[in-house]
Amino acid sequence: MRALDIIIKKRDKGELTREEIEFFVRGFTTGEIPDYQVAAWAMAVLLNGMTARETTDLTLAMAYSGEVLDLSDVVDFAVDKHSSGGVGDKTSLVVLPVTAACGLSVGKISGRGLGFTGGTLDKMESIPGFRCDLSPEEFKRQLKEIGVVLAGQSPLLAPADGKLYALRDVTGAIPSLPLIAASIMSKKIAAGAQAILLDIKVGSGAFITTLEEARQLARLMMEIGQMAGRQVEVVLSDMNQPLGRAVGNAVEVREAVETLQGGGPADFRAHCLHLSAHLLMLGRRAETLEQARQMAEQAIASGAAFEKFRALIRAQGGDVSYVDQPETLPKARVAGEFSSRREGYLSEVNARVIGETAVILGAGRHKKGDAIDHAVGLIVHAKVGDFVADGQPLVTLYANDPGRLMEARQHLASAFRWSKTPTPPLPHFYPLHEE
Amino acid sequence: MRALDIIIKKRDKGELTREEIEFFVRGFTTGEIPDYQVAAWAMAVLLNGMTARETTDLTLAMAYSGEVLDLSDVVDFAVDKHSSGGVGDKTSLVVLPVTAACGLSVGKISGRGLGFTGGTLDKMESIPGFRCDLSPEEFKRQLKEIGVVLAGQSPLLAPADGKLYALRDVTGAIPSLPLIAASIMSKKIAAGAQAILLDIKVGSGAFITTLEEARQLARLMMEIGQMAGRQVEVVLSDMNQPLGRAVGNAVEVREAVETLQGGGPADFRAHCLHLSAHLLMLGRRAETLEQARQMAEQAIASGAAFEKFRALIRAQGGDVSYVDQPETLPKARVAGEFSSRREGYLSEVNARVIGETAVILGAGRHKKGDAIDHAVGLIVHAKVGDFVADGQPLVTLYANDPGRLMEARQHLASAFRWSKTPTPPLPHFYPLHEE
Repeated sequence: MRALDIIIKKRDKGELTREEIEFFVRGFTTGEIPDYQVAAWAMAVLLNGMTARETTDLTLAMAYSGEVLDLSDVVDFAVDKHSSGGVGDKTSLVVLPVTAACGLSVGKISGRGLGFTGGTLDKMESIPGFRCDLSPEEFKRQLKEIGVVLAGQSPLLAPADGKLYALRDVTGAIPSLPLIAASIMSKKIAAGAQAILLDIKVGSGAFITTLEEARQLARLMMEIGQMAGRQVEVVLSDMNQPLGRAVGNAVEVREAVETLQGGGPADFRAHCLHLSAHLLMLGRRAETLEQARQMAEQAIASGAAFEKFRALIRAQGGDVSYVDQPETLPKARVAGEFSSRREGYLSEVNARVIGETAVILGAGRHKKGDAIDHAVGLIVHAKVGDFVADGQPLVTLYANDPGRLMEARQHLASAFRWSKTPTPPLPHFYPLHEE
Repeated sequence: MRALDIIIKKRDKGELTREEIEFFVRGFTTGEIPDYQVAAWAMAVLLNGMTARETTDLTLAMAYSGEVLDLSDVVDFAVDKHSSGGVGDKTSLVVLPVTAACGLSVGKISGRGLGFTGGTLDKMESIPGFRCDLSPEEFKRQLKEIGVVLAGQSPLLAPADGKLYALRDVTGAIPSLPLIAASIMSKKIAAGAQAILLDIKVGSGAFITTLEEARQLARLMMEIGQMAGRQVEVVLSDMNQPLGRAVGNAVEVREAVETLQGGGPADFRAHCLHLSAHLLMLGRRAETLEQARQMAEQAIASGAAFEKFRALIRAQGGDVSYVDQPETLPKARVAGEFSSRREGYLSEVNARVIGETAVILGAGRHKKGDAIDHAVGLIVHAKVGDFVADGQPLVTLYANDPGRLMEARQHLASAFRWSKTPTPPLPHFYPLHEE
């Protein structure tokens, strides 16, 4: 078998066999197949596609390219939750403690922010002392002891995915549904998940901007799950406007704490309860979705969820006093307002532009490895459909640099649109199947 | 400007600007753009195509990536001839001396054989002492002194093409018309050609197997020529069966010598005269194609063409006695016959299978850098349309290894097909435009 023949087969729109895919993944993991051949192959896959069967074989080959966690001696059923990324998406910070408080263990591998989207690890690292680089042994021990883990990608898990992703990133081969699906699923499988809840974000502030593409990805992920023997449940949620109000790092932790304590923005709270309920169903902790949702609400109301969040922080070296007094979390030096320039109904609160504004302030990174400022960020006070007066504050900006504050405020101008006639609010979720 | 954005633009079917193409070519020539980005880009070009304008910009950027010969102080008008490669195509060995004997200087950069096709340099190196690695200065001096040069690709000329071709070769990015056209034309322009005659081979024994694709390539090359300010003339010729009778290296030199001395197979002789006439027209040595053809015939009949061939060999260090007595050229130890297995009209004499058989005997190479055996080869006695008797010898094989001879003979079996009803002979040339 030769790498060149496998590239040519995909170039000519052929369907690769499992053996060919395994050969190729093994070759690029060991470095026997050079980067330039992998890059040519990835571009051919992006342009010519892959069947669900090929994508499943790719997923499994990448999952088994390194260590695969066996969590069966730690938990009876390992569930995981993944969001395809968005602006203001601090959902894991709430959903993990809530489900763990309901007796369902969740060990999650998370990522960092890139471009206009934020990352769960960056947000958690606003809490002084909190560390994410857990070894597989630490991961398992913590999962057993407190039922909740939030760790970074280990280079031992799915190393093929790490290599392929880094190469796709510099060769324009990111936006391929089969490659996206295989990347996500291989990491989940390597981390030992038996059931996976996927929250696919759709809209201007997500990588996937159309409902059609989101549904394609959902179908593909469910097919992979079926073929790979994993339960996969998918939720499609709106990402045209930010989720909740806070966008940044420490500001998002504060909003998560508020939500865990029974407050928080209505849309974000609803989102967390919906996802927690789905996770509890996947983990067979409830008979109906409604019952699961009530369990989740109860975990918040009783304080058990917040207590789990504290346990998570403590277990990973974080200083719990910062979430007990969230006003002590990193704060930026200067604040500014962005106000409405006219009166009317908001018809757009563009999540992408708001995410880009957070990057301008220093809350995100342009490229991997960039340092980020945990203190800066935005609070978005309005949602699509809201009626706003001329001069009414729409966004509060927190910055450490007056120049960046000015630049950010200018950038924000294109995020909003107004309508003279009432505009309906955006849905939180979209149906998985066309109606 | 970033290489990544240029890849993404082509991935998304965009048209690259001249600045973008120049930036990219400069980057991969200097090595600033890494191989994996070039490989991803080449695959995107192969799958999404390029306009004639983009291809011209690519051609010129590659031509000017290194030294560009200025032949104006050596010859009044520099012409070059290029064949897209085939089986038994020893045309340059005849056409160059013929046109030089008619007073038109031709300095040609040639290639080596790869896969089932032979290379002019390999054939010439059957002549002991003959060397092809001329410096640009030697190239110009020889062109001035005797009006004919047959040299190998200099790493100083179009280095970008050398790099890109090597990468395309190992990433499945060879069969792209824009990349093929830019590769050929960039080398010709760097070698100083003002007018270029292209002999595009079509058929089983060529890289281009359909007339439609050959015409596309022809159109593209002529468009590039027009935009780049070079005269380009294209001839489409058949390569379903081998050209002439000899396939190999020394055997092809012998056939070229026969032809230069007024003999040789009729199809090969006709091919050489046709191409010589076109070259003479391009070089404005005749008023009509018919007149040019008579000049070429006269150059052979008078012995001037053969004398030019001898001068070429002598100038490049070759021992002329070997072409004066062609029977002294390298000869293989064993010979064998492949005979017809039935009676009938030959409906196929597959050039590709015959080229592959020559490689089995050792006359060609599987991959770059492989050593070749100049002595081995085949003589194909029959053409499509010929009536053959059962048991009649169709091919004589010359080998240095009895095992290879047996393998070659077995391989040959699939080259021939017979018909009970008369089959018309194959055309030598195809019309450039659809009729």
